[in-house]
Amino acid sequence: MSAYPPAPEWHTSAWLNCETPLSLSALRGRVVVVEAFQMLCPACVLHALPQAQRLAQRLRQRALAVVGLHCVFEHHAVMTLAALRVFLDEYRIRFPVGVDAPDENGGRIPRTMRAYAMQGTPTTVLIDAAGRLRRQWFGAVDDLELGVEVGSLLAEAEHALAVTPSRAGEARSGCDPSGDAA
Amino acid sequence: MSAYPPAPEWHTSAWLNCETPLSLSALRGRVVVVEAFQMLCPACVLHALPQAQRLAQRLRQRALAVVGLHCVFEHHAVMTLAALRVFLDEYRIRFPVGVDAPDENGGRIPRTMRAYAMQGTPTTVLIDAAGRLRRQWFGAVDDLELGVEVGSLLAEAEHALAVTPSRAGEARSGCDPSGDAA
Amino acid sequence: MSAYPPAPEWHTSAWLNCETPLSLSALRGRVVVVEAFQMLCPACVLHALPQAQRLAQRLRQRALAVVGLHCVFEHHAVMTLAALRVFLDEYRIRFPVGVDAPDENGGRIPRTMRAYAMQGTPTTVLIDAAGRLRRQWFGAVDDLELGVEVGSLLAEAEHALAVTPSRAGEARSGCDPSGDAA
Amino acid sequence: MSAYPPAPEWHTSAWLNCETPLSLSALRGRVVVVEAFQMLCPACVLHALPQAQRLAQRLRQRALAVVGLHCVFEHHAVMTLAALRVFLDEYRIRFPVGVDAPDENGGRIPRTMRAYAMQGTPTTVLIDAAGRLRRQWFGAVDDLELGVEVGSLLAEAEHALAVTPSRAGEARSGCDPSGDAA
Repeated sequence: MSAYPPAPEWHTSAWLNCETPLSLSALRGRVVVVEAFQMLCPACVLHALPQAQRLAQRLRQRALAVVGLHCVFEHHAVMTLAALRVFLDEYRIRFPVGVDAPDENGGRIPRTMRAYAMQGTPTTVLIDAAGRLRRQWFGAVDDLELGVEVGSLLAEAEHALAVTPSRAGEARSGCDPSGDAA
Repeated sequence: MSAYPPAPEWHTSAWLNCETPLSLSALRGRVVVVEAFQMLCPACVLHALPQAQRLAQRLRQRALAVVGLHCVFEHHAVMTLAALRVFLDEYRIRFPVGVDAPDENGGRIPRTMRAYAMQGTPTTVLIDAAGRLRRQWFGAVDDLELGVEVGSLLAEAEHALAVTPSRAGEARSGCDPSGDAA
Repeated sequence: MSAYPPAPEWHTSAWLNCETPLSLSALRGRVVVVEAFQMLCPACVLHALPQAQRLAQRLRQRALAVVGLHCVFEHHAVMTLAALRVFLDEYRIRFPVGVDAPDENGGRIPRTMRAYAMQGTPTTVLIDAAGRLRRQWFGAVDDLELGVEVGSLLAEAEHALAVTPSRAGEARSGCDPSGDAA
Repeated sequence: MSAYPPAPEWHTSAWLNCETPLSLSALRGRVVVVEAFQMLCPACVLHALPQAQRLAQRLRQRALAVVGLHCVFEHHAVMTLAALRVFLDEYRIRFPVGVDAPDENGGRIPRTMRAYAMQGTPTTVLIDAAGRLRRQWFGAVDDLELGVEVGSLLAEAEHALAVTPSRAGEARSGCDPSGDAA
């Protein structure tokens, strides 16, 4: 399984639902589900974000972190940090959400989105407990398929690394990536 | 049936999906469904607006107008006209949408919302072909219940007033309230 | 509207959820929705029957009768009256259900199904308050479309015939076609 | 993990979608999902069986067997083998289905249902690749939760036992427990 590449670190300009910036490396030992979205993207709002919320709620006892990433690549003027804050509040999204950092050269694709070569939103990314990029879907994934992949990585993590829920808890750094902040 | 009050005229500051402002009086002879919403209101986005879209698509041959009304009563700074324009485009909403005019005295409830005494969003309003306010729901209505009420008003309009789809078509004023602009 | 043909009378061999046989003529003055189904037909079980149940429940105050018709045209040996009785009980179906009478010449299509020229199950039939066949769908109909048609016939009935819910109640003959027997 | 008990062997009187009887021991090396149902149980028909079908279809490449078990504990006279055969055919259920053997002493609870102490239908049982009973739910389980548990057992099986899909294929005995017979 050594063939899997390390997942690129996130480049963010802000975090919501999280007191201090969250880094991928700080989540080592936990399986990480990244939900890359835009607040005005219908498939994100209707499918991917509710699914990420269910995942965060159902698996809050496991060594899992659900993290949102606001990857704005269009209509930057209206999908601002202030608008995102209202959006997360209205939709009761509690897991940490990072704002993908703008391109250094003024391009419209933000940095993390580019680093992961995402094709659009929603993109769901699975990163294993060792920080390796294991799976990436563009568009809607169904609950059964996502569940199987997440369950597989959780079992792998728990067998190989003996990560226990309490150990995982210690790794938390200033916010609650289990999505259970409230 | 003379007990039903006339529906208050709309007070709007802008219209989208519509070249010229749309007035309730110009729609006399057609049944009107008003979907009052906010673009960052989850029940509007997940339920009421998709339902209004289905209604507009399925009944485009009938003497019906589906009209959206953006009644912003909170978070005014982020639910702007520019943001609404992007929202309607992304969600493929084609029916005319009016922006409810701000309160003259600086209150947070916009004018039409106040005139109809709406309790929040979504609110679905049924106006008969004679311009009378027949029904108003706050919150989600199911398709069967909404269909029965709309069908009832359509039959009433067609019997009493002999409104035909072609007559109704003549009443159109600069936009397509059947939601079939594209 | 005189162009609509009278709906053929039902030919049944038994009734469930109903003490005495129910005839179409006894329901004059009410809009009638007939749900023709087979208990082992997936689209009937997953879509049409739950929809008929919602219709019966939501419109119990109106001049409407929802009636099931078990039109067995295949696998007669296992879709028996005894099996149907269990099925209705398990699925909590409370509206009257007639068993379509077998073909007199031993054919596999039962009599009422043939009289209405149904193509299969589910078939949803709308009969107006004057006993005329107004609409017939083979396969799934959506709630909005069904609601509009039912609402239209209800308005027509209430205007033309001045049928009130209490008058309609008097027409009930040994069972409760509003589906509210329990 | 040695604390998990061996899953009781199945006692069946017949098999459908399967040429020869299927035994739990013959499936060693594969994760087994048993869907215990009755053909006239609404939650089975509306939720559990469609879910089992999705599972069989999506995971046909993995070391997984989806097996139905018809556990009739009521209305025995109408839920016969002949009726079950029609039911499976109409609902396009392709995975092997065993008929739970009647109680030797004439009780109404069939043998396997009793051996697993099931409380009713639907019951979903997860058995790991070593034949141990790992999880049992009475009533509806959601796709995400089921997926996570199945994915976890699959990962465990693949790591610990190095079962590959081709090895698993060899274990097939006269039917296709991946549910892909057609």
